[in-house]
Amino acid sequence: MATTQVNKTAHPFDKPRFEALLNRRFFYAPAFEIYGGVAGLYDYGPPGSALQSNIITEWRKHFIVEELMLEVDTTVMTPAPVFETSGHVARFADWMVKDLKTGEVLRADHLVKNVFEARLAGDKEARGLAAQPVKEDEKKKRKKDKGKAVAVKLEDTVVAEYENILAQLDNYSGPELGELCKKYNIRNPDTDNEVSEPVQFNLMFASSIGPTGQHPGFLRPETAQGHFLNFSRLLEYNNGRVPFASAQIGRSFRNEISPRAGLLRVREFTMAEIEHFVDPEDKSHERFVDVRDVELNLLDRHTQSAGSTKVTRMKIGDAVDKGVVANETLGYFIARIHLFLLKIGINRDRLRFRQHMSNEMAHYATDCWDAEIQNSYGWTECVGCADRAAYDLTVHMAKTGHPLVVRQALKEPIITEKLTPEYNKKNFGKTFGKDTASIQTIIDAMDEAALAKMQGELAQGATTVTDTEGKVFPLTADHLIIERKTFKQSVREFTPNVIEPSFGLGRILYALLEHSFWSREQDVERGVLSLPPVIAPTKVLIVPLSARPEFEPLIREVSTKLRKAGIFSRVDDSNQSIGKRYSRNDELGTPYGLTLDFASVQKRTMTLRERDTTTQLIGDMDEVLNTVIELVDGTIDWPAACARLPAYDGVQALE
Amino acid sequence: MATTQVNKTAHPFDKPRFEALLNRRFFYAPAFEIYGGVAGLYDYGPPGSALQSNIITEWRKHFIVEELMLEVDTTVMTPAPVFETSGHVARFADWMVKDLKTGEVLRADHLVKNVFEARLAGDKEARGLAAQPVKEDEKKKRKKDKGKAVAVKLEDTVVAEYENILAQLDNYSGPELGELCKKYNIRNPDTDNEVSEPVQFNLMFASSIGPTGQHPGFLRPETAQGHFLNFSRLLEYNNGRVPFASAQIGRSFRNEISPRAGLLRVREFTMAEIEHFVDPEDKSHERFVDVRDVELNLLDRHTQSAGSTKVTRMKIGDAVDKGVVANETLGYFIARIHLFLLKIGINRDRLRFRQHMSNEMAHYATDCWDAEIQNSYGWTECVGCADRAAYDLTVHMAKTGHPLVVRQALKEPIITEKLTPEYNKKNFGKTFGKDTASIQTIIDAMDEAALAKMQGELAQGATTVTDTEGKVFPLTADHLIIERKTFKQSVREFTPNVIEPSFGLGRILYALLEHSFWSREQDVERGVLSLPPVIAPTKVLIVPLSARPEFEPLIREVSTKLRKAGIFSRVDDSNQSIGKRYSRNDELGTPYGLTLDFASVQKRTMTLRERDTTTQLIGDMDEVLNTVIELVDGTIDWPAACARLPAYDGVQALE
Repeated sequence: MATTQVNKTAHPFDKPRFEALLNRRFFYAPAFEIYGGVAGLYDYGPPGSALQSNIITEWRKHFIVEELMLEVDTTVMTPAPVFETSGHVARFADWMVKDLKTGEVLRADHLVKNVFEARLAGDKEARGLAAQPVKEDEKKKRKKDKGKAVAVKLEDTVVAEYENILAQLDNYSGPELGELCKKYNIRNPDTDNEVSEPVQFNLMFASSIGPTGQHPGFLRPETAQGHFLNFSRLLEYNNGRVPFASAQIGRSFRNEISPRAGLLRVREFTMAEIEHFVDPEDKSHERFVDVRDVELNLLDRHTQSAGSTKVTRMKIGDAVDKGVVANETLGYFIARIHLFLLKIGINRDRLRFRQHMSNEMAHYATDCWDAEIQNSYGWTECVGCADRAAYDLTVHMAKTGHPLVVRQALKEPIITEKLTPEYNKKNFGKTFGKDTASIQTIIDAMDEAALAKMQGELAQGATTVTDTEGKVFPLTADHLIIERKTFKQSVREFTPNVIEPSFGLGRILYALLEHSFWSREQDVERGVLSLPPVIAPTKVLIVPLSARPEFEPLIREVSTKLRKAGIFSRVDDSNQSIGKRYSRNDELGTPYGLTLDFASVQKRTMTLRERDTTTQLIGDMDEVLNTVIELVDGTIDWPAACARLPAYDGVQALE
Repeated sequence: MATTQVNKTAHPFDKPRFEALLNRRFFYAPAFEIYGGVAGLYDYGPPGSALQSNIITEWRKHFIVEELMLEVDTTVMTPAPVFETSGHVARFADWMVKDLKTGEVLRADHLVKNVFEARLAGDKEARGLAAQPVKEDEKKKRKKDKGKAVAVKLEDTVVAEYENILAQLDNYSGPELGELCKKYNIRNPDTDNEVSEPVQFNLMFASSIGPTGQHPGFLRPETAQGHFLNFSRLLEYNNGRVPFASAQIGRSFRNEISPRAGLLRVREFTMAEIEHFVDPEDKSHERFVDVRDVELNLLDRHTQSAGSTKVTRMKIGDAVDKGVVANETLGYFIARIHLFLLKIGINRDRLRFRQHMSNEMAHYATDCWDAEIQNSYGWTECVGCADRAAYDLTVHMAKTGHPLVVRQALKEPIITEKLTPEYNKKNFGKTFGKDTASIQTIIDAMDEAALAKMQGELAQGATTVTDTEGKVFPLTADHLIIERKTFKQSVREFTPNVIEPSFGLGRILYALLEHSFWSREQDVERGVLSLPPVIAPTKVLIVPLSARPEFEPLIREVSTKLRKAGIFSRVDDSNQSIGKRYSRNDELGTPYGLTLDFASVQKRTMTLRERDTTTQLIGDMDEVLNTVIELVDGTIDWPAACARLPAYDGVQALE
């Protein structure tokens, strides 16, 4: 009989075996595979689609429903002027280099990273330090993929230099990457040819809208602009009040230079983005108290600049108090992102929040943290969480003239006193003619001290104003007087700031699959995906032991009851052995199995199998159904189920 | 007190009022509005997004879960060769004409339709038959929109001609539309200028994939190709068996020539598509018996060809039996589409299924029916349901060489006998050299009769074969013999046929909003959207009568209980009057309201308001909560709730 103790780490992570499972069960596959495929485009099959859909459902609950966000659904196709204003046309680009002989195009930062990592691996090998013995065929593969990992010992100082550069690689500009290539003789590892100077390549897909091609357009590379352009309507929908958040789940497109790392770098992907609009003078969050004690792995910018990647474990409350994280609202979302990722099954020890370094961050941003998840490709950014300040609303307002601001009635009007020029329009016009407006503009721009000085000079008879071209205009009290006036401001107008958590769902899904995968101790060929019930594609597999007609009503009864409880189940009535049917569903991540056998027909008993332990329990059909419903709900866990129902080991021999 | 009798037709449908409501409540709005917008692109605001999301959830339940379909999620960006094979590059086009003076571009079939309809309206006016009196400003608007509806009487024969052409307009080719323009002097109604000959415009958005522009690509205009290209993987996932269906919900893009009719003709839209793969020799459906008695409004192709648009009410079982609908599987899906549309709130009297006419249907299709929903723009295709035969799989297989077929083990092998040539390879090669292959190809292609003749000639000594160029080759029994042989076929290989129900979700959503809208009898300004609870954006509005802190725990209690029951609610604690808050939610389609007043604080009572009748009931908080949960679930209806809880009319005065 299977025990409840399961050793999930008996076999080291085996990527080819893992990828074979995903491919065999059609979690996803290269799009247009029968046409030879195109790099960076993937299709999700039935289990991948269901997994994605369940992650989205949980995301909606965790963020939109829980926080009453305003969901929007805006278009992918976007006229060019929008991205000209947002800065994407000028700056949404990566640096690429060309192989000087073959013309192959490579992303500059990836090239540097791969070559340095290969050299460091070669150095470790030469020192006899290679952490894991590398099999011959894998070594070949790695060489091809990542550069030449030949066993060459490096100087200690060179190792330190490489490691230091790698820790802050995201901080390098294009020309700086070009200098690295020259200084360290970095070549295309596939051909050993030199590469060109880095040039920028805009990552947006271009198209044109309408039959005459009159409207150039781009496919959005993120959903954010759709939120910003609808800001006034959303504010009105929210009764004119901030803070509030909009949320959107949808496709975005990036024409990546040379996508390679499977689902981690693709040209089309589903995002979930939140834009939380907040008063720039008050970035506190009323529910921050609920998350203060959430502990996170933080990698701040100072640590990275010092050439280290060592994380600090810290409560988010302390991180905000100490100024490591810029403000409460940003901290609140970082903690909520952390909780969401754990809920769907990400391993907390392989999750860290890395702060952007100064060059890496958009120039307008106040602070930015990426949720990075460790996987076989390294640490991958899966969620970005940025304080974008007022940048986006400000540029769109400046371009369109549409007021993207909040008007807030002040509880107590603000009374201010200040010196104010009062013009005698008639005399002013008569004396200065067409220069009138520019002189008044200069005076209007004066600060309190300058106005006080002018007031004094006018009191003594005359003053002067000098324009930008050095022309001097004499003024007297006939032209203007300067007086102290009282102003009452009862409405405050401001451009809200935006905190933006932005999720790459495909990357999260991939990392989650890696974290969920293991092989049974007794047989490395028997892979399992330990997906939590909440996101598993199928929650319950119904396995009739026979195709005889008397099983039909029982199958229907069980299916119907599960459907009524909102639980997605599937029947496997193929003629394969029950062991094969369960193995297939272990690979699909199905957490529970219900077996209908001849005892079910005669005595209405049913067995319940748990995926990870392969333990089985038995009981009356209704009792077993109630138990499995509570297991899927999360009301009880497996040990509680074991306490409720007796163990069953009659079918074990068949597995 | 409000009665339970509600007159929803007291006021005629008022489109400007309806559109103002949708705009005010941000169901949707033109995308990039603050940049001036682009025709045919719309963003959904919070209620529109929620409504769409709820329709999708119901669609998933009704089709994917209920029928255990295999969901896929494939890419929008598609390399050009795929659409070259599918025929979209050559044929996915509309006919457009240009205004010969202004260059304005118009869709040819829409131009003919609008001008004919305007002339027929003008004729009715001239005959004093105008069905509804047209207000002066509306008349002006219509003129601008649709052509010049001037009151000119037409000959009776001309009226008949126009009506006949309109009934089968979808049957006209581009050149035929050009002839109509000439024959009936059809001009651009906005300018009265002549228009050009119709030319084809391909509706796919083009882009290019990769940094060097080496891969031309298109945005998919439908999701279908993604299903077909993954057919082998899906078949394997389904254990090699047909029938099965794949399903996909996702964005598609069409670069419409001159989109005008709001959400009904847009350049980017969400579709839900099913591809049901079926044995071409057996298009029965095992669940057809469940839908046999579903009654539909059918408009078949013969009726249309005869110039009529009169529907026939018929059970789908009878329609299939009589051959009106081609086969059971097609009929099954037509009925299921009908049931789905009714479930989400479409008015059954404004729903019809129209069969495609011969020219309208793709050349490979066997039969095609559109679910058309009547709305203020006319009858609009919202769902297409086509039998695409084996076309798509056949062309992709021919192009790629990848076997897109089903191999079915035959229960009993098929034994056949036939005449078969047996070549003496050595002699054949010696005699005919390089001509060997072509001679054998000719013989292999011979039918039974030709082979029998050759067999006879060989028995008599010699025969001949003539190649395509007229060259004659003499043959003897030294080269080949012809014998009767027995063949045993144990596997049947076939290309499945595809039945494709394809849903335009935006069109359905718009039609649904029109069908749901009405104004209260006593006040035309008070609009209501009678959305069924299952798809209403918010199910329950919680309205605290006061902002005092003692209401807080009650609000939290009610919200939490509803959330636990899976019911989406919102709290409106704005400082508007309770009547205003309810009116706002009538416009948002929120079916139920819960009011917390001082009695709630003191005695734990709560009132429950129903949107359409505005009736209110009162009871203990828990009892009211249970009632509203059952109402939203659909377990009980409003009369049942009225029987359970006493009426309340204390707050009516405030509305």
